[in-house]
Amino acid sequence: MPQERIYNFSSGPSMLPQPVLEEAAADMVNYRGTGMSVTEMSHRGKDYLAIFDETKADLKRIMKIPDTHEILFMQGGATLQFSAVPLNLIGRTGKADYAVTGNFSTIAMEEATKYGDVNVAYSTEDRNHTYIPAQEQLKLSADASYFYYCSNNTIYGTEWKYVPETGAVPLVCDMSSNIMSVPVDVSKYGLIYAGVQKNMAPAGMAVVIIDKTLAGAELPITPKLLGYRLMIDSDSMNNTPPCFTIYMLGLVLKWLDAQGGVEGMSKLKAAKAQILYDVLDDSKMFRAIAEKEARSDMNVTFRTASDELDAKFVKEAKQNCLETLAGHRNVGGLRASIYNAMPAEGVEKLAAFMREFETKNT
Amino acid sequence: MPQERIYNFSSGPSMLPQPVLEEAAADMVNYRGTGMSVTEMSHRGKDYLAIFDETKADLKRIMKIPDTHEILFMQGGATLQFSAVPLNLIGRTGKADYAVTGNFSTIAMEEATKYGDVNVAYSTEDRNHTYIPAQEQLKLSADASYFYYCSNNTIYGTEWKYVPETGAVPLVCDMSSNIMSVPVDVSKYGLIYAGVQKNMAPAGMAVVIIDKTLAGAELPITPKLLGYRLMIDSDSMNNTPPCFTIYMLGLVLKWLDAQGGVEGMSKLKAAKAQILYDVLDDSKMFRAIAEKEARSDMNVTFRTASDELDAKFVKEAKQNCLETLAGHRNVGGLRASIYNAMPAEGVEKLAAFMREFETKNT
Repeated sequence: MPQERIYNFSSGPSMLPQPVLEEAAADMVNYRGTGMSVTEMSHRGKDYLAIFDETKADLKRIMKIPDTHEILFMQGGATLQFSAVPLNLIGRTGKADYAVTGNFSTIAMEEATKYGDVNVAYSTEDRNHTYIPAQEQLKLSADASYFYYCSNNTIYGTEWKYVPETGAVPLVCDMSSNIMSVPVDVSKYGLIYAGVQKNMAPAGMAVVIIDKTLAGAELPITPKLLGYRLMIDSDSMNNTPPCFTIYMLGLVLKWLDAQGGVEGMSKLKAAKAQILYDVLDDSKMFRAIAEKEARSDMNVTFRTASDELDAKFVKEAKQNCLETLAGHRNVGGLRASIYNAMPAEGVEKLAAFMREFETKNT
Repeated sequence: MPQERIYNFSSGPSMLPQPVLEEAAADMVNYRGTGMSVTEMSHRGKDYLAIFDETKADLKRIMKIPDTHEILFMQGGATLQFSAVPLNLIGRTGKADYAVTGNFSTIAMEEATKYGDVNVAYSTEDRNHTYIPAQEQLKLSADASYFYYCSNNTIYGTEWKYVPETGAVPLVCDMSSNIMSVPVDVSKYGLIYAGVQKNMAPAGMAVVIIDKTLAGAELPITPKLLGYRLMIDSDSMNNTPPCFTIYMLGLVLKWLDAQGGVEGMSKLKAAKAQILYDVLDDSKMFRAIAEKEARSDMNVTFRTASDELDAKFVKEAKQNCLETLAGHRNVGGLRASIYNAMPAEGVEKLAAFMREFETKNT
């Protein structure tokens, strides 16, 4: 990594692989001799469709998405999916189960109450979302249209280590902050979605992976563009899609492939997270915020004994090209988001800085 | 323009100014010494907020947007606004007036029927949307929540030459295909919106300009992220906005400023369109599709006497670096979209090619 690039521990938008950015820069004025930027191409022209189709095919292959499921590219990020999910899916029985394990699942659950009856299958609010419920703690409804959870809680730094068993009730999962960091058996899910700005591409899109049999049951009040059936039938092109974001996702997928795909990322992410958790477990100054069994490999939340020392840490880290390390206001303290594009060297540099900071300030 | 860039007459996404693309390329890996790409920046960090705030301020200044109105950046393009407009605004009286003058106003009108009573104030479908109704032809409702129209019809090549008078009923206008090509008195409008991919930025966003007094009346079923009140209160950042698209809009605005702003564009666009309409009016081979009084300066629709000759024209034009000239399937024939970023030389080259084509094929 050239001297002038920083290590950016932002929770999202977040780092993109440098080779991806370099290729985007080289393509920007004239994409591969087409005489156009990707940003200028008609979404219905053959130059753009080649990019679009290859990106979809790469994602399908890399995530091993079965033919039963369709990939959709939708605008509005994860937040608009908080609405789209119940608008499309809750109508079957009028009811849905939500596991509330953080900020975003709380908002998703609240949004669903507009469109049907919501059963909170579990809430981790009692210990400020520092843990993940066990399977046997989930209060499941046999007649739920779906069971909803968020597999990684960006703000609190917790991650589900198992796939909930819900019998015949379809699983719906917000994977915004850990998609493509770990292999997923897509066939177990009715619907997976992810805002792309953490592990996939620049902000401005959600990837939706839907079991096609679930589409077509949207409530009559569903805004046209939020209907999964229409999006499947139009191959995400009922209107102009966010073309550049899809192109960038395509570049990220090529890069990911070269790193060993999701399997390669999975090994790397566990190793990267372990480096930081080892520092935390050895430290007398820093302590991890999430409970040990629930620790996220994507977002490492921690703190010192005081807000002042936390602030000093953020400031001095920045002087060492280690940026965006303040925790979310709901939690306070510190947070290092280490998504796929964060190089191991960035994590090692942070770990070394943490040790040095502790020595100097004890 | 370097040899290798083409003139792209696509109806959208469409050409962006070359200096904008060059600057985006230069910034892509490391934006102005921040050590990050704009695509990697936290939307809540100071580096990104500086871009965001400057873009909003430039748009406000260039479009002379009064303090009564707020600028919103929303995902989903114009199509999601087809839903957002009635969801937010129709509740006041339960009723809205729609002028239907093309494809997109038809879809917008149909979408509104999900949420209230719609009065079609006029439809130009009788002559395949080749004209624009006169003020006195509009059948207005005194109790409409708003009057809706689309100021330029991309597919049919027609443009409203006047602002409808609707008394106390707020005007809502889809300006996707002619925004910033002509000065607009924003104070006359309750709401203006535009998908950005024609005259403003890469695809993936709509700019919404709303009279703040109209916000806050959304139907209870409105998806959270489509609520104008929430978007105003959160300064378009309830969730992560399409950060790169906003940055690109900022670059386009700087370029536009240097060209004399909207006033400069307005002179240029009339001159560019006249070049093509002069060819059409002089021609025995080509004829304009839109009726003369309604001709759009942004989308010039025309045809020869046969589909075969149209196809030959498209093919041979492409060999001359004049691309994407086929008409929309609803109309057929040919279409040259000449938005702000299309240089006058591109239009002149097309005009010369048309004359040459006629000579060779007569």
